[in-house]
Amino acid sequence: MARIGIVGGTGYTGVELMRLLANHGQAQLEVITSRSRAGTPVAEVFPNLRGRVDLEFSEPSIEAYKRCDLVFFATPNGTAMHQVEELLEAGIKVIDLAADFRLKDLRVWSQWYGQEHASPFSVERAVYGLPEMNREQILDAQLVANPGCYVTAVTLALLPLLKHELIRPDSIIADCKSGVSGAGRGANVSTSLCEASESVKAYAVKGHRHYPEIRQNLRQVNDAADLVFVPHLMPMIRGIHATVYCEALADEPRIQQALELFYAEEPFVDVMPPGSHPETRSVKGANDCRIAVHRLPDSNRVVLLSVIDNLVKGAAGQAVQNMNLMLGMDETEGLSGIGLMP
Amino acid sequence: MARIGIVGGTGYTGVELMRLLANHGQAQLEVITSRSRAGTPVAEVFPNLRGRVDLEFSEPSIEAYKRCDLVFFATPNGTAMHQVEELLEAGIKVIDLAADFRLKDLRVWSQWYGQEHASPFSVERAVYGLPEMNREQILDAQLVANPGCYVTAVTLALLPLLKHELIRPDSIIADCKSGVSGAGRGANVSTSLCEASESVKAYAVKGHRHYPEIRQNLRQVNDAADLVFVPHLMPMIRGIHATVYCEALADEPRIQQALELFYAEEPFVDVMPPGSHPETRSVKGANDCRIAVHRLPDSNRVVLLSVIDNLVKGAAGQAVQNMNLMLGMDETEGLSGIGLMP
Amino acid sequence: MARIGIVGGTGYTGVELMRLLANHGQAQLEVITSRSRAGTPVAEVFPNLRGRVDLEFSEPSIEAYKRCDLVFFATPNGTAMHQVEELLEAGIKVIDLAADFRLKDLRVWSQWYGQEHASPFSVERAVYGLPEMNREQILDAQLVANPGCYVTAVTLALLPLLKHELIRPDSIIADCKSGVSGAGRGANVSTSLCEASESVKAYAVKGHRHYPEIRQNLRQVNDAADLVFVPHLMPMIRGIHATVYCEALADEPRIQQALELFYAEEPFVDVMPPGSHPETRSVKGANDCRIAVHRLPDSNRVVLLSVIDNLVKGAAGQAVQNMNLMLGMDETEGLSGIGLMP
Amino acid sequence: MARIGIVGGTGYTGVELMRLLANHGQAQLEVITSRSRAGTPVAEVFPNLRGRVDLEFSEPSIEAYKRCDLVFFATPNGTAMHQVEELLEAGIKVIDLAADFRLKDLRVWSQWYGQEHASPFSVERAVYGLPEMNREQILDAQLVANPGCYVTAVTLALLPLLKHELIRPDSIIADCKSGVSGAGRGANVSTSLCEASESVKAYAVKGHRHYPEIRQNLRQVNDAADLVFVPHLMPMIRGIHATVYCEALADEPRIQQALELFYAEEPFVDVMPPGSHPETRSVKGANDCRIAVHRLPDSNRVVLLSVIDNLVKGAAGQAVQNMNLMLGMDETEGLSGIGLMP
Repeated sequence: MARIGIVGGTGYTGVELMRLLANHGQAQLEVITSRSRAGTPVAEVFPNLRGRVDLEFSEPSIEAYKRCDLVFFATPNGTAMHQVEELLEAGIKVIDLAADFRLKDLRVWSQWYGQEHASPFSVERAVYGLPEMNREQILDAQLVANPGCYVTAVTLALLPLLKHELIRPDSIIADCKSGVSGAGRGANVSTSLCEASESVKAYAVKGHRHYPEIRQNLRQVNDAADLVFVPHLMPMIRGIHATVYCEALADEPRIQQALELFYAEEPFVDVMPPGSHPETRSVKGANDCRIAVHRLPDSNRVVLLSVIDNLVKGAAGQAVQNMNLMLGMDETEGLSGIGLMP
Repeated sequence: MARIGIVGGTGYTGVELMRLLANHGQAQLEVITSRSRAGTPVAEVFPNLRGRVDLEFSEPSIEAYKRCDLVFFATPNGTAMHQVEELLEAGIKVIDLAADFRLKDLRVWSQWYGQEHASPFSVERAVYGLPEMNREQILDAQLVANPGCYVTAVTLALLPLLKHELIRPDSIIADCKSGVSGAGRGANVSTSLCEASESVKAYAVKGHRHYPEIRQNLRQVNDAADLVFVPHLMPMIRGIHATVYCEALADEPRIQQALELFYAEEPFVDVMPPGSHPETRSVKGANDCRIAVHRLPDSNRVVLLSVIDNLVKGAAGQAVQNMNLMLGMDETEGLSGIGLMP
Repeated sequence: MARIGIVGGTGYTGVELMRLLANHGQAQLEVITSRSRAGTPVAEVFPNLRGRVDLEFSEPSIEAYKRCDLVFFATPNGTAMHQVEELLEAGIKVIDLAADFRLKDLRVWSQWYGQEHASPFSVERAVYGLPEMNREQILDAQLVANPGCYVTAVTLALLPLLKHELIRPDSIIADCKSGVSGAGRGANVSTSLCEASESVKAYAVKGHRHYPEIRQNLRQVNDAADLVFVPHLMPMIRGIHATVYCEALADEPRIQQALELFYAEEPFVDVMPPGSHPETRSVKGANDCRIAVHRLPDSNRVVLLSVIDNLVKGAAGQAVQNMNLMLGMDETEGLSGIGLMP
Repeated sequence: MARIGIVGGTGYTGVELMRLLANHGQAQLEVITSRSRAGTPVAEVFPNLRGRVDLEFSEPSIEAYKRCDLVFFATPNGTAMHQVEELLEAGIKVIDLAADFRLKDLRVWSQWYGQEHASPFSVERAVYGLPEMNREQILDAQLVANPGCYVTAVTLALLPLLKHELIRPDSIIADCKSGVSGAGRGANVSTSLCEASESVKAYAVKGHRHYPEIRQNLRQVNDAADLVFVPHLMPMIRGIHATVYCEALADEPRIQQALELFYAEEPFVDVMPPGSHPETRSVKGANDCRIAVHRLPDSNRVVLLSVIDNLVKGAAGQAVQNMNLMLGMDETEGLSGIGLMP
């Protein structure tokens, strides 16, 4: 059994990691830290884990992390970059679920995250943890930057089309809809049930941190790629629905085929039949991404629909998938959960 | 036009008072204060009021309140009691939407609200503002204590039955369900959409502040009255559903008739036909209370179902109803809104 | 008091018309018909109307409609076209909330609605009832085609920009999100709470009936206009959020100004300050449309955000606004309701 | 691998059975039938199962069921009783998730289900499938009647207290709150999102079919037991919260201890610490029942709080638990899923 640590486990990615690890056959949670809740049993904060996770939150401790084979950082942006070097030097593998190691261009990172980067060296070593894009590198990685939630949904929809030049790379518009859990577990009037239910709004229209991350991914495939990205808040807990518009350079069957071939062997990407409209609830609690494509009649536009659970394939599930790869386990171990419908 | 002030207007009772007053033909909001948001336009905090309320929040100011005919306190418990005496002396009428003047027994008040009362004199002068119980006194009141939300739903269901001795007064169990807006507009993890939607829980089972208030009301009618009261949090914004169980001393037609007669002239209490199951959504946004009664077959139990919108008949709407009475206006002015269905 | 009839009142536009008319000072509901519920009191089907609407549903009857000054058709598509001629001949004014008279090109209508049109003559006479576009003609109209819900939100956002040539007319993408009430009140597994809550999906990506209607509106202003339109189902009852992407031919201040000037005198269109993100809940239950505009940095794209309540400004509220114009009343009469927040 | 059949798999218990069986290590779904959807791939109706369940719905066929080791009836009430005898004779084990074999008194059954029973012989043979009550008999059963959802939540809360005579057996009031999925997957206006969200209502106050079933359970333990039972519809998909009031014959520590001891070895019943308020979301998707107990101060009343997921411990999960027992497997196999929080 691999020994696992979680740094900063009181948020939604923390509890979701614990939910997945509790049913993982080859990994054992050894330590979970939280400055604010040290000494409190995990199951008191997250009663769904009663009887399944017996640990208490403990004080952050590099020494404790060093007794692990792999450590997840489920901390705010700008935290892992201060601690990761010591762990890497000690031979510990690390997956950061925040954004510290996602952007390779440090100037872009500083611009969007409002601070200097504390560990450029780690950024260089980090592998971007989207298995469908970088599986080989993840297998050998010591440090993985787990992708953003919107980023995962949009990138998976576009990768095959950009690679095969089936769309105009600078014509992309990604209109994305997210459940409220994407905003994290902080106390916040704007995410209270009274403010966020029975309503829809766009936010950060002028610029969201996932924009440069999506662009970086797309440019790995086609350096002319660019996009418009607008996120919206939906009145629900989990789920991301990306609706991606682009100008097509091929007909619908060709695009459908490209998607199907690209993902034929992927365990967690499901290309739906022509004419489908994926629902976010079909992946609620599951590590799946479902994609459908429509070429519009009498138009050169193609519309891609891509859904994930932002806390699973968009965060903790993808992190476990990366862990499985990094530790030489079956990639799907612990990730067999099926979407909860209804 | 009567000149109206609101003290502490950034919460849900504040915005609801403004929504109702904006369509009131004989009252004009003159001042609304908020220490934390002074200088901010009201419509920036509450965009539903754009174009309808042009005021800014201003600093709390007794002088400003004194230019009003009537002032609503939409402040936390323990606030109005420190300011009300000066206003009363100046001849201003006051309605407190918090709990400062609801309980006549100051020892009980201190026990439940954890502090000494700052103005026993005002408590004595205050009229409990449930028009269906105390209309005559409200007409002449200078200070009105606006009832609690749960209290309104439960009291209205029980008043006629206790008065006519149709139930055993010590057999009452009130199982109450409330939308999340009852918890107010503070930033709070437990009322976030992610925590409070798709779930139901009881809270404060061992004791809730509305318990002594309901008991006081019931004992006005029958001094042997007592009850068990358990509140529950529902995954919705607005609405209270009280399910009240008691031992019947009469048959269903007699109880139905007592309710219908008691409320025959009341503009805001609707006794539904036998066999009805009122839905909270039928009063969403409206000042109505709907009540149905069922005597169970082969049993001595009667079940009362009572629904209100906690922010309207349970708070701001009832406060406007009290204002109308205190200022000699038509009791229903500004309160003609109909429940939003769907 | 004008005498009003409603044909087919058991759906959501029917109940919403009744809610609005019950607080209208110059109109009185005389007759409401429903084949399926004839003989049932309205308030039994819609308990929010208890004590406010005393009518029963009656059998459809041209004679009854003829006793009215104005008749609303709240019927399915393809119904009003069979009955309207007789009413128009009798001098009755008519507003159809369905789609029978919205499209001027009958071939297009037949293509999207799957049948021959029964009254081309009425289509010619009909005025398209978007007051912000056609107020003068509505004032004199005898037959008004009330616009579709998505159509209203998208058209209002684009009208000023197309008129002043501030965007490329063929670059428009409208990604629209709607609450479930837009699907009507029929029994349907796909709109059940268990299927439609906690989920988001696109639908009708290949083609939705509101597409030709939006296109017709936009081409009134610029005959090169065309768009991509994709509707999505949101897990909420009411509200439409249109996110409209287009290529800008002007800078943000110019576009903002054009919107503000265009709607400066409009009672129900609110152009929000630069940087705003309107929320659908700010118009819940109200006849308002709120619009914000963002020009993206380092891009030629402009993003318009437009929100309405699909049942009010998107249906019954706009119909009452049209009625007010047709009957020479104050355009805002009965429409002073404020969005319910929270 | 045991071969499993499901009769009538297009409802919510059907899809939930498939979700659980797909991750069961010792059981394999062989056949799933549906008259209305025969020939349709299961994953087309339930896209969460894409890639996990490759079967099509087939026509109902006794022959097909006979090739199974165990057959679940996920059919409406009154269906299994016509088919079960032939299966039992063929040596097939059967679990009925409907109510055909739950009530031992056939007169009571006929009274509540409105028909004569077609197989009194099977009722006699059937074991009531609440493992915490009847584990030994279930181990040897050929036919199991899977309990009702409300019944499970209420019975588990009360069993230890009745057994140890810690409450007055005729003083019980069970106020129960259920998510909408309890009403099944039929097309129905009253369970549409627009009608059932943002609202709470009681229903069937005068009598619900789970009442005689709860009473039968309680009388197994104390033949003086009786209760008042009122169900309520909550605006959420899954979850039951039972709030049970009774007169205590012991103090809180004694009652707490009785619960803890009674369930000490139970894998799926979690007695929470004193002072707890269980949330339904803590068991969403899981086979757990969480129970808390409060003795009210200055009162002889005790309040029990009991939560389950109505589709898991209240239906399909409990059915799999029974299957595991009947087939000699580990009772917890396939049931390790953890509540989805958030």
